[in-house]
Amino acid sequence: MFGNTFGRLFRVTTCGESYGEGLAIIVDGVPAGLPLTEADIQPDLDRRRPGTTPIDSPRQEKDQVKIIAGIMDGVTTGAPVGMVIYNVDRQQIHVDQYQSYKDIFRPGHAEYTYFIKYGFFTDWRGAGRASGRETAGRVAGGAVAKKILQRENIEVVGYVKELYGIRAKEMSFEKIKENRHKNIINCPDLETAEKMIKKTLEIKEEGDTIGGVIEIIARGVPAGLGEPVFDKLDANIAKGMMSIGAVKGVEIGAGFGATKMKGSENNDIPYIDKDGKIKFKTNNSGGILGGISNGDNIVVRIAVKPTPTISKPQQSIDMQKMKETILSPITRRDPTICARIVAVAEAMLAMVIVDHLMMAKGMDAIAKIDKPWK
Amino acid sequence: MFGNTFGRLFRVTTCGESYGEGLAIIVDGVPAGLPLTEADIQPDLDRRRPGTTPIDSPRQEKDQVKIIAGIMDGVTTGAPVGMVIYNVDRQQIHVDQYQSYKDIFRPGHAEYTYFIKYGFFTDWRGAGRASGRETAGRVAGGAVAKKILQRENIEVVGYVKELYGIRAKEMSFEKIKENRHKNIINCPDLETAEKMIKKTLEIKEEGDTIGGVIEIIARGVPAGLGEPVFDKLDANIAKGMMSIGAVKGVEIGAGFGATKMKGSENNDIPYIDKDGKIKFKTNNSGGILGGISNGDNIVVRIAVKPTPTISKPQQSIDMQKMKETILSPITRRDPTICARIVAVAEAMLAMVIVDHLMMAKGMDAIAKIDKPWK
Amino acid sequence: MFGNTFGRLFRVTTCGESYGEGLAIIVDGVPAGLPLTEADIQPDLDRRRPGTTPIDSPRQEKDQVKIIAGIMDGVTTGAPVGMVIYNVDRQQIHVDQYQSYKDIFRPGHAEYTYFIKYGFFTDWRGAGRASGRETAGRVAGGAVAKKILQRENIEVVGYVKELYGIRAKEMSFEKIKENRHKNIINCPDLETAEKMIKKTLEIKEEGDTIGGVIEIIARGVPAGLGEPVFDKLDANIAKGMMSIGAVKGVEIGAGFGATKMKGSENNDIPYIDKDGKIKFKTNNSGGILGGISNGDNIVVRIAVKPTPTISKPQQSIDMQKMKETILSPITRRDPTICARIVAVAEAMLAMVIVDHLMMAKGMDAIAKIDKPWK
Amino acid sequence: MFGNTFGRLFRVTTCGESYGEGLAIIVDGVPAGLPLTEADIQPDLDRRRPGTTPIDSPRQEKDQVKIIAGIMDGVTTGAPVGMVIYNVDRQQIHVDQYQSYKDIFRPGHAEYTYFIKYGFFTDWRGAGRASGRETAGRVAGGAVAKKILQRENIEVVGYVKELYGIRAKEMSFEKIKENRHKNIINCPDLETAEKMIKKTLEIKEEGDTIGGVIEIIARGVPAGLGEPVFDKLDANIAKGMMSIGAVKGVEIGAGFGATKMKGSENNDIPYIDKDGKIKFKTNNSGGILGGISNGDNIVVRIAVKPTPTISKPQQSIDMQKMKETILSPITRRDPTICARIVAVAEAMLAMVIVDHLMMAKGMDAIAKIDKPWK
Repeated sequence: MFGNTFGRLFRVTTCGESYGEGLAIIVDGVPAGLPLTEADIQPDLDRRRPGTTPIDSPRQEKDQVKIIAGIMDGVTTGAPVGMVIYNVDRQQIHVDQYQSYKDIFRPGHAEYTYFIKYGFFTDWRGAGRASGRETAGRVAGGAVAKKILQRENIEVVGYVKELYGIRAKEMSFEKIKENRHKNIINCPDLETAEKMIKKTLEIKEEGDTIGGVIEIIARGVPAGLGEPVFDKLDANIAKGMMSIGAVKGVEIGAGFGATKMKGSENNDIPYIDKDGKIKFKTNNSGGILGGISNGDNIVVRIAVKPTPTISKPQQSIDMQKMKETILSPITRRDPTICARIVAVAEAMLAMVIVDHLMMAKGMDAIAKIDKPWK
Repeated sequence: MFGNTFGRLFRVTTCGESYGEGLAIIVDGVPAGLPLTEADIQPDLDRRRPGTTPIDSPRQEKDQVKIIAGIMDGVTTGAPVGMVIYNVDRQQIHVDQYQSYKDIFRPGHAEYTYFIKYGFFTDWRGAGRASGRETAGRVAGGAVAKKILQRENIEVVGYVKELYGIRAKEMSFEKIKENRHKNIINCPDLETAEKMIKKTLEIKEEGDTIGGVIEIIARGVPAGLGEPVFDKLDANIAKGMMSIGAVKGVEIGAGFGATKMKGSENNDIPYIDKDGKIKFKTNNSGGILGGISNGDNIVVRIAVKPTPTISKPQQSIDMQKMKETILSPITRRDPTICARIVAVAEAMLAMVIVDHLMMAKGMDAIAKIDKPWK
Repeated sequence: MFGNTFGRLFRVTTCGESYGEGLAIIVDGVPAGLPLTEADIQPDLDRRRPGTTPIDSPRQEKDQVKIIAGIMDGVTTGAPVGMVIYNVDRQQIHVDQYQSYKDIFRPGHAEYTYFIKYGFFTDWRGAGRASGRETAGRVAGGAVAKKILQRENIEVVGYVKELYGIRAKEMSFEKIKENRHKNIINCPDLETAEKMIKKTLEIKEEGDTIGGVIEIIARGVPAGLGEPVFDKLDANIAKGMMSIGAVKGVEIGAGFGATKMKGSENNDIPYIDKDGKIKFKTNNSGGILGGISNGDNIVVRIAVKPTPTISKPQQSIDMQKMKETILSPITRRDPTICARIVAVAEAMLAMVIVDHLMMAKGMDAIAKIDKPWK
Repeated sequence: MFGNTFGRLFRVTTCGESYGEGLAIIVDGVPAGLPLTEADIQPDLDRRRPGTTPIDSPRQEKDQVKIIAGIMDGVTTGAPVGMVIYNVDRQQIHVDQYQSYKDIFRPGHAEYTYFIKYGFFTDWRGAGRASGRETAGRVAGGAVAKKILQRENIEVVGYVKELYGIRAKEMSFEKIKENRHKNIINCPDLETAEKMIKKTLEIKEEGDTIGGVIEIIARGVPAGLGEPVFDKLDANIAKGMMSIGAVKGVEIGAGFGATKMKGSENNDIPYIDKDGKIKFKTNNSGGILGGISNGDNIVVRIAVKPTPTISKPQQSIDMQKMKETILSPITRRDPTICARIVAVAEAMLAMVIVDHLMMAKGMDAIAKIDKPWK
């Protein structure tokens, strides 16, 4: 495979499989002088890691990150930040479970396409590189990005907006931040969250899985980020989001909803606020116009499909024998990954913003354009 | 701006503005020995160009493409294909119209963010580089990609799936291909198309605009394209699609709909057909699993917002004076760009597939993996 | 081919062949607000173009550049600058000459490897894309880069240092600038220049060709440009220079000469000048330490091989017949390209510096490091 | 810094400093099905590591590599290969030595430019990322590249060609391979090697250092690799080589020597050998014409400067005090790094070849050109 690096200036490169030795993450483009320790990264990893609630996989991974390069005395040096996360829950008993059906792919899972692409050399242990395990690397890289954004007063906040059609009500950014971690589904609308959890437990009981919609908001992003025409800010956000395993859709602002509005309804009308700053009455644009941030909140939603691994028998193919066969129910699985994927989506958004921030600042410093409205 | 090149191996680079001299397109990564003349490119440009129907902008652009490099005697040489399209409908009268409100941005349009990024140096003539005019360059590049795909028996077909909530019925790939150009809205469901056109004309009369959903299907894509983890096939498709000006959402296969299905419903169940080949009973995956094509049709849908340019007065800001003001109705505009954007979306999908095809073939030739199912 | 774009942020993409319609050049990453007209670009093109002196090819190309995108009223808009140069000296008589030996490659020329790579589809007319003609595109792109550097008070100056072993004496930067265009070989040491010209005319008479060493100096480059570890400033300079057709060697500062010095001799000893600035007593480093500029002049030398096209019969192969054969003397040729290649090498150095400047400024703006010595 | 990834398809990303925890290396683009264990990588690391002979640094690093990702049962899976090398010789006593002069840069060393770029956040412990220690990461990545090349029957062999002006005689590829490791200076001309070693010990005694010329040859490279015009094979080789810390010059084939030859002497005359294959009577081109391999040996030479760290007092600057000062002699150092750098240069050449091989094969598979001479 050729795609394990993300970004143009701020670049995150990862490796590692589900049941291999561990993951390594190299983050290039980190400014010198940034205080950074494992304590800055661990909380996001903890939000992603499995085994902590009844609605996610029972796998016990500590996801303990160790920074091995790029810092001195707890401060970045300008050198790439290198991190390692060793896999700990890789007992033979679990590997054996995967081995029992290693030639029979899980319908809906990347195992099939990995067979096609890599043949029988594919790492079948928990689906290897195709496992959601790789997202720990994204979260680690994203945590470094967030640390950079923090100094720029940019916050990236995600939450579960909708689960299997159960949708949270509209809430303010502040309220979302305050409430989203008050339950195991990471939904800030506390009443709806209860319904979501109940539904998930029912589905789990059935042996099935469900997906949902995650919304990620970035607040404080300055106007002017994004590189027309192909490297628009939303283009790279879409790439980053769609690169997450279970994501099947991405929308910005009003998104697909904009297709049911007239231009006169969809256009965000500008005004000048009391501080003399340009603001918009609505944010259908999701903070991005023509691929460039407009200073409003960046609002992204992603569609997360139900996890393909279910505890029900399914028809599949034995790739060695090239014969149809029944894949037995699988027990080590997530009834939904929506709660855990929030940290991953935030990581991708944070990386894209940092990358574009560096590009935009580089150009601004050369162009030296006089902008009266600043 | 830094983003005028798309692709890793197969690379399309474009320049050109709405009312500048013209556009140039350089397509790198074109194999030698491909028959290629302007006649291969013009038809797609004609599908995109304005001024041909009552539902698009009255601008009269011939969009006549001239190949100036990369071919000899009508066959590619392996050198990059260079193309030029000169702008012809750039009479002073039209430029004057834009000049009259050049400091007042159109709400919902990139003009605002271009001001923020490029100051008063921005090309205000028809919004310069931020105009949909740049998409002619994409279409020209995409036509070269399609020509390559044709030899691989890969077809890329787009159409208007939904307009302002009016949705075409489900149809077979063959029927879509046969019918989609039978009306000016490029919708293969002929009855629904009539409703769409009627609605568009009503909206036009109102001075307003509408958007819709475009579906693009690629048939014949071999299984195995896509580069985990960040350069997944769908990740790059999402990037390509979201980089198109008016696009606010992208989904693959069941897309956002997958969030309302259980895993057992969403998983595409495989079987072995009478020729001994693996097929799937459904295509919720949209032909992509784990970021890698599975041999089924690639199915992509994009949300196109209503064009921001409307013939109604709107509140805006005069950027020179930093004062709120009313922007007068604008007459030179598209009531919807859905019909025209189809060719653009096809172009982006074609580029992404060619790029990934070259990557995958390069690796296959080195890896030499024995795959019993081929 | 896949390699027609150069740079990471500031990117030049070119196409065009020796006897095709013309060349197109797209320069991405140009800041808005830069005054730019054809008059800024033409002089460098004129320094490169053939047919003007007895020591270069008789081909008559005006190399007239036309900017078709990226400017408005003579000022850049932030959009990519698009340029076109049409080929004019492509009379049938010249094409016929090439046709007469189109299957017989010129020894020492890229024609052989193009055959291997592109088969008989290769453009054989004056060697197509492999011709030095493509360097006009580099010069046009480089002229835009130089225009950016000018505002930063960075100058890039090249000249012929050595021709067929005849070496110019050491001279000051000011003297080099003043004298280098006083003769047709572009050597600022006027006495040596006469010897060089005399030697070239002798060699031309013989039907042979010679090469030499070009030195390119960039003055005013701020300390701090270059991205360890793989994108060092000198690494990208080396790439840019070696990508020029006839170049077989690149050295920085003392270069190969450093291998005959001791560390104590080669180390440039720093001191603090009367303005409190750090300077170096010598410049063996060529202005680059650890891949990062140190504020001193960037000094690069390149080895230019003798042009392979000679007016003497040579043994070669007829690729159609796969038979040894004699290639007849060729008359349309350069006895040396050293004088003309100076502008090309300057262009590459200018591009690399602008690219790194944008990267460094982008990082500096984020890192905000307090540097007492500034 | 932004430059810690090398390559376009086959990509090596590294991190790690001289006295940090360790190094991590991620190699992307590794084909599945390649047998690979630490035993394939360790030998090259051992050739590079210090502390084994009287002519290199006394530092005791085991450079023990551990593969943590990308393999299963000793075979690659297609996923990126992740490796970790922990630093072991980082006793406080050594760190203390560096601390004693941490604000005073070593003349000729990257410490100065790192100060300029990263301020006092720079890792001063053994010069951090600017230390030759990072080259262990290159060697590990290169070893993976070599393993791929081995299956393609491509060998990459480097040796010390010249040390402080003492030059080895011309030798056959076979003889070079056979002899080069018979002495501690890695020079296959055994008599000259003795002189080189003697000279190095003398220089060491003086407290000084010397450099030299390394030649690296790749045998078996198929004709057709390299991407005109900017990604020529030699352009990327030049970049790779010049990105190695102490390298100040790169030449291909006759290199700078070509500037003293006539075209008729420099052109490599082709002939057809008894097997019907095209060969060349000489190899002044160094196996590359027009940026594309011609099937002959790729021959590269690099100029390695004398290491800047010497055991003599030198004038320098205290960056905190911004005052001239004397830097005391430093004892922990290499009298020459020529012997050790051989493995590093081989690694870079191997990476470039694999990268281009994948690109060329990808295009060939699409272009399907009929080539009668194959």
